Amino acid sequence: MHPFSIASVRRVGVVGRYNTPGIAKPLKRLVAFLAARGLDVMLETDTAALTKMRDHPTAGVAELGGAVDMVIVVGGDGTMLAIARQVASYRVPLIGINQGRLGFLTDIALTEMETALAAMLDGQLVVEERMLLHASIVRAGVELIEGLAFNDVVINRGGIGGMIELSVGIGDSYVCDLRADGVIVATPTGSTAYAMSANGPIVHPSVRAWSLVPISPHALTNRPIVIGDGEQVTITVTRSREAAMHWDGQLHHDLVEGDQVRIDAAPFSVRLLHPQGYDYYAMLRRKLHWSESPLSLKAGRPRPGDR
Amino acid sequence: MHPFSIASVRRVGVVGRYNTPGIAKPLKRLVAFLAARGLDVMLETDTAALTKMRDHPTAGVAELGGAVDMVIVVGGDGTMLAIARQVASYRVPLIGINQGRLGFLTDIALTEMETALAAMLDGQLVVEERMLLHASIVRAGVELIEGLAFNDVVINRGGIGGMIELSVGIGDSYVCDLRADGVIVATPTGSTAYAMSANGPIVHPSVRAWSLVPISPHALTNRPIVIGDGEQVTITVTRSREAAMHWDGQLHHDLVEGDQVRIDAAPFSVRLLHPQGYDYYAMLRRKLHWSESPLSLKAGRPRPGDR
Amino acid sequence: MHPFSIASVRRVGVVGRYNTPGIAKPLKRLVAFLAARGLDVMLETDTAALTKMRDHPTAGVAELGGAVDMVIVVGGDGTMLAIARQVASYRVPLIGINQGRLGFLTDIALTEMETALAAMLDGQLVVEERMLLHASIVRAGVELIEGLAFNDVVINRGGIGGMIELSVGIGDSYVCDLRADGVIVATPTGSTAYAMSANGPIVHPSVRAWSLVPISPHALTNRPIVIGDGEQVTITVTRSREAAMHWDGQLHHDLVEGDQVRIDAAPFSVRLLHPQGYDYYAMLRRKLHWSESPLSLKAGRPRPGDR
Amino acid sequence: MHPFSIASVRRVGVVGRYNTPGIAKPLKRLVAFLAARGLDVMLETDTAALTKMRDHPTAGVAELGGAVDMVIVVGGDGTMLAIARQVASYRVPLIGINQGRLGFLTDIALTEMETALAAMLDGQLVVEERMLLHASIVRAGVELIEGLAFNDVVINRGGIGGMIELSVGIGDSYVCDLRADGVIVATPTGSTAYAMSANGPIVHPSVRAWSLVPISPHALTNRPIVIGDGEQVTITVTRSREAAMHWDGQLHHDLVEGDQVRIDAAPFSVRLLHPQGYDYYAMLRRKLHWSESPLSLKAGRPRPGDR
Repeated sequence: MHPFSIASVRRVGVVGRYNTPGIAKPLKRLVAFLAARGLDVMLETDTAALTKMRDHPTAGVAELGGAVDMVIVVGGDGTMLAIARQVASYRVPLIGINQGRLGFLTDIALTEMETALAAMLDGQLVVEERMLLHASIVRAGVELIEGLAFNDVVINRGGIGGMIELSVGIGDSYVCDLRADGVIVATPTGSTAYAMSANGPIVHPSVRAWSLVPISPHALTNRPIVIGDGEQVTITVTRSREAAMHWDGQLHHDLVEGDQVRIDAAPFSVRLLHPQGYDYYAMLRRKLHWSESPLSLKAGRPRPGDR
Repeated sequence: MHPFSIASVRRVGVVGRYNTPGIAKPLKRLVAFLAARGLDVMLETDTAALTKMRDHPTAGVAELGGAVDMVIVVGGDGTMLAIARQVASYRVPLIGINQGRLGFLTDIALTEMETALAAMLDGQLVVEERMLLHASIVRAGVELIEGLAFNDVVINRGGIGGMIELSVGIGDSYVCDLRADGVIVATPTGSTAYAMSANGPIVHPSVRAWSLVPISPHALTNRPIVIGDGEQVTITVTRSREAAMHWDGQLHHDLVEGDQVRIDAAPFSVRLLHPQGYDYYAMLRRKLHWSESPLSLKAGRPRPGDR
Repeated sequence: MHPFSIASVRRVGVVGRYNTPGIAKPLKRLVAFLAARGLDVMLETDTAALTKMRDHPTAGVAELGGAVDMVIVVGGDGTMLAIARQVASYRVPLIGINQGRLGFLTDIALTEMETALAAMLDGQLVVEERMLLHASIVRAGVELIEGLAFNDVVINRGGIGGMIELSVGIGDSYVCDLRADGVIVATPTGSTAYAMSANGPIVHPSVRAWSLVPISPHALTNRPIVIGDGEQVTITVTRSREAAMHWDGQLHHDLVEGDQVRIDAAPFSVRLLHPQGYDYYAMLRRKLHWSESPLSLKAGRPRPGDR
Repeated sequence: MHPFSIASVRRVGVVGRYNTPGIAKPLKRLVAFLAARGLDVMLETDTAALTKMRDHPTAGVAELGGAVDMVIVVGGDGTMLAIARQVASYRVPLIGINQGRLGFLTDIALTEMETALAAMLDGQLVVEERMLLHASIVRAGVELIEGLAFNDVVINRGGIGGMIELSVGIGDSYVCDLRADGVIVATPTGSTAYAMSANGPIVHPSVRAWSLVPISPHALTNRPIVIGDGEQVTITVTRSREAAMHWDGQLHHDLVEGDQVRIDAAPFSVRLLHPQGYDYYAMLRRKLHWSESPLSLKAGRPRPGDR
């Protein structure tokens, strides 16, 4: 995989979050800033329509990755996930600008957009590779559908079908049968998303591993497992009335008894660009309010010697 | 138990947190306020010494409960726990004023002290009864020591002695053997203190129940249990190198193999006075930051349909 | 509520689990045993059809409660739940016989059926009252549907609709907003069922309380809460693509945004009969394998001083 | 690191668990078996004394690693941990024979000892590398003590000193302040030991990562974190009355405020030999009773459609 050099960036793709009131203005600001820096801008088709900007070439998301040197996403983490999955195979790097509170992936505030981008374009940036999952559904020996996941692959029960039963394998090994609401296979990126709600561990993005996190498992001894990313995970639906598989919670497909989900590492990763000084743990502290709780709870948690 | 009437309060005990810089000034403000309302003030001995107030009678904490109609504590929840245990048998009600962030028990801010107390003295208040635990250690058939706990009774291992083994009984029933770092028996008040760190549930103060919460149990199937407050809990130390029992984490006594801890409901409860409009759930939301997380984490937790 | 006397039992209702191969034989054994004891037997209609027993009067489950003095259920806990909800309003007591492994509610093994019942009919038995929930769905101010739950009321998302948002109130208090896969309101009986998978505490059946257990909550500070059974819980669906409410996981109804679920204590409880010597904690130990884990894991969990 | 070849093994070290009644007999059986295979046996000094075997050279554990080609440990996992730490630097491989129930590390039953060893000596074996931690305590800038851990490094409070406060760093990054009973830094091997009791994830031994698991943390948002093994973890004691650090729970040293614990990967790993067909997941299933719970709990967990 070739190293990335910001100096070689000529053409920048710009994507905005769909149907978001008030997003046109910052998108225009962004495009003007990029043009003033002498960069060519290509707009994602819907973004161009939304903002009525007509002075730049456009492309659908699927084509954008092959046509630009870098993509800037203005939106939340949900938008970033969707765009990243579609451009990752081109190895084109992504920058995330958040119009609300900062996200795990979209770590540049709209208010600081120009300052942050100027510094990054001057080479003050951090390049980070994030792994992607590839998952397919095999029914009666035939692959039905396949796709990528940046956060997680989730297999879960339907709303009314009750607990499902799954058989989990890793590589050539049988792991366990699971009776649960479902199971999450998460990348490190996804470890702070749905997997965390289901009691999974936080996994640093530099660790080459996935988390298998059961959702409300019947057996109290079924616990989250962290495994290497080198082996295929196979999850077979052994009993279910109604079940589905989800890619990043954004795309899904129904599952029936006997279906097998096969999950392995995608052959490429997502390349994220962060401002110089990016710190994963600072982001965790901010999102999880780590600095606040001890102080504010202090009075209420008397312990030996507190008086 | 006789109902409480704020109109019958004549003498008010005042206790301040020990060794707390800057606490003399608000204590004097409080005493002046009470005197201006025509109430007699009695100072806890150390509080009088600390503040150098010499115009009021004094008493030790142990005597204070029998000498006044109401006690006001200025400090944190730790101070409140310690004072409440000592005055509870007199059925004297307590008000808690917090000089820092509000606590679970000390729910009046120093800045609003006079306003809040004035309204309460005018009868705009809520009276709440909170259960107390009574726990004793029996060694070789003889009671060694006994005392009260407002938050919790904790039996735990020493820092270097390793996991301990306990045998738990409730009433006439044997419950289980436990290999763990220890076990917490918490009142509803204590359910938001140490028990919460050990994965115990929040228990509303109106529920007549205790939580038994194992601390880092060896067996994954050992889970918190909520039991009625009508039966004695007996916890026997069956294997230990070094162990101790703690009352509210403020007093403790060593335990040796064979010791039995007996826990039952104290014959009286703690009577707390809150400002009108006191709301347990509002306090939970404030202490646990319930309102903050969903908003701030929103961007980072993409779920189906989020884009 | 009138006390129960086994001596006054004349007519016994018998219900078998539906569609269960091999259940006819033990049902016939049971009926023969009861007839030999001089008791009148009434068969639930489907049970009579299944077993082809034609010498006894029959009644649908809905009528059975009003027509007999006691009901014996042969099946698993699922069957017991369904029957108990339908006969509870008649205050008719239930005995559960399990044709497989013993359940939480069906605690008499088929192999010991005659011995256990003989002793119980001779008065060697324990009577236990278990609380029931009543839950209704109110849409646009109108009650759509209502029903009872013995284990739990569950409000959850659909399989593909993503996280839902709920607003929880108890009595007159607002408790919290919840972004989660759903929420469980469980009786003590249900505390060892689905609520346990979602990290809820075990609650002894004698405690007058319910557990509110969030399912995979977004905010890490949303924890199980145990509340008194005297107040109405209201749960409003504030955001949802697809959601449903479930009574004991056996009946369900769709929910749409704006729907409010109202949950309170049913005006009657379920009366269970157990053999003399019934021990709730013994049942927990058996179902949760409490005795096994410490021994078998021992070697693998070295702790200070273990060598 | 040189590959291991069983064919080149000439001299085998034998170590038995200390002070274990009845262990002399199987140790003699083992030595006889090895001698019959034409191998030289060297006995650990205490093992020789215990068994009164005088026909073989002896060495202390510290010297054994440098004097033999392979070590066989007869005992539990605790013995294996202690021996592995002492011989690991010599890269000498270990085989574990368990005289009780099988452990996580000692996976050959005494009853099958000869059969299993014969096959392994014939080359039917699996070689596994397990990472080791190295941890030192730095006080006032000076290293006080250092040592290895196979399972975990634990920093915890004393039995009576109350919650401690720690500041955690990884590499050059500050991670968080932690108020807790302590923190565990576990290898994948240790992920199924104490870390699991504290709610840490299971980590497959092939993953190059450590788990940082807080013990009963004050803040509900402090969660287990899985990090890469390439960076130094530094844990500073910022507030403590009484605290200690533990290597595998077998050795410990007191900690005072200001002490810094530095943890990094040892420059060598532990080499374990398993019988052909060794399966990590099979071991997990056995130790965690994965196959039992779903069946036995089935009846008690009715879910939609169960009846």
